[in-house]
Amino acid sequence: MAGHGIPRSHPRYWSLVLRERLVEAWRQGIVVPEGLIAHGRGECFDYLIGEETQWFAREAVRAAAAALLLAEHPVISVNGNAAALAAEGLVRLADLLGAPLEVNLFYRTEERARRIGELLRRHGARRVLGVDDATARIPGLPHPRGMVSPEGILRADVVLVALEDGDRTEALRRMGKTVIAIDLNPLSRTARMADITIVDNIVRAVPLLAETVQELKEKPREELENVLRGYDNDRVLAGALRFIKERLEKLAEEGIAMDPRRQ
Amino acid sequence: MAGHGIPRSHPRYWSLVLRERLVEAWRQGIVVPEGLIAHGRGECFDYLIGEETQWFAREAVRAAAAALLLAEHPVISVNGNAAALAAEGLVRLADLLGAPLEVNLFYRTEERARRIGELLRRHGARRVLGVDDATARIPGLPHPRGMVSPEGILRADVVLVALEDGDRTEALRRMGKTVIAIDLNPLSRTARMADITIVDNIVRAVPLLAETVQELKEKPREELENVLRGYDNDRVLAGALRFIKERLEKLAEEGIAMDPRRQ
Repeated sequence: MAGHGIPRSHPRYWSLVLRERLVEAWRQGIVVPEGLIAHGRGECFDYLIGEETQWFAREAVRAAAAALLLAEHPVISVNGNAAALAAEGLVRLADLLGAPLEVNLFYRTEERARRIGELLRRHGARRVLGVDDATARIPGLPHPRGMVSPEGILRADVVLVALEDGDRTEALRRMGKTVIAIDLNPLSRTARMADITIVDNIVRAVPLLAETVQELKEKPREELENVLRGYDNDRVLAGALRFIKERLEKLAEEGIAMDPRRQ
Repeated sequence: MAGHGIPRSHPRYWSLVLRERLVEAWRQGIVVPEGLIAHGRGECFDYLIGEETQWFAREAVRAAAAALLLAEHPVISVNGNAAALAAEGLVRLADLLGAPLEVNLFYRTEERARRIGELLRRHGARRVLGVDDATARIPGLPHPRGMVSPEGILRADVVLVALEDGDRTEALRRMGKTVIAIDLNPLSRTARMADITIVDNIVRAVPLLAETVQELKEKPREELENVLRGYDNDRVLAGALRFIKERLEKLAEEGIAMDPRRQ
């Protein structure tokens, strides 16, 4: 399946493996064609951040873990791409937090919601909302992309979204929710609207977030509150942009050096 | 069809129209899922160059027009994404040059090659190679992605490729061909390997290239040779990177100013 035929020595090995995983999930009716295009945009930004978790993502992950542990009703929103790329880690995260997973789709069909729910349950998910019970509505969003579970996103105080649309992030913020976003584009509306923005690939961010939740789980409430108070999302986003600019400079130099016409 | 339901006032109108066009072409068997992902990467870089034709693309287009007019056997290579996004302009360009179009696919199936050939003919293409006659082989590329027409790419002196894979661009260069590439990523292997790299969206670059060929068509040979002699692809690529860096800085400033939490 994933990675089949791609040598591990290939410089873009992981990128190619993820691409195959997405195409496979599309064949299974979990990912929509628009999700494949969105993944391509993500690939571009992942390349620009060096395809590694950088300091700005680590800071955001720590704050996100604290916010999720302090939440009364945290909910983990899952769309097709997130399920295809990070189902296992999302289930583990939900388990550690005792939080529900909620299938929440921009291009919602009942069939696709059902398939994603099944995928999450196959990975051991205990509580999956948004499959049969997406009966409530986020104000300001058209049907069906505004439909959520009354037990999940509707009543949540903290929502983790990954690879999310800007309109939806904005609507969640208007409802007064704390939004944690995993988004590779530090300039996207979601990245700028969220309270905590993890600028990293979901396949790296989710396992790190689960690990950090595990680590902070037994800490006193004040310590978690201190982590949150010390966190500055604007600084993190500015840091991500600065990193990309510096990397572009570096790549430009290497690029010319690597040019075979120059040798 | 394309653009349906998207208001023209939407800030990303054209980007969304193109995305719909790609998904539609995928439904018609012209574009592969991997092509959708590749399009997403392109969207990201288009966003970074401001979704407009910049000076570095204009310079490259002028050199490309001169190279194509000076060529003895120019060939215009067409893959699924290029056909979906720019069939009309590619046909016009081929007509102006009296050059063949060649269907040349990374993920080649005979069915898809046939569909793309039909699409080009519906747009008025006179000569389409690579559908029934992809019997020759580019040395160093595995079957079927190395198959080309003996009347087309195999004997061409100048090949225009769009949205092309790095391995294939490299193989064409090894065969001694002049390669003109349309590629939104100034850091891609194709962009760095090509003789002339047009860093622009194919939907803008191809009509501009056709227009420029028309304009230079009656010029004396020496004038075209002068255009080529004065062209420096490294300067153009460095310019594209510099532009992206400066735009990131600008977007970062605007982004923070636009942040609703700041108002």
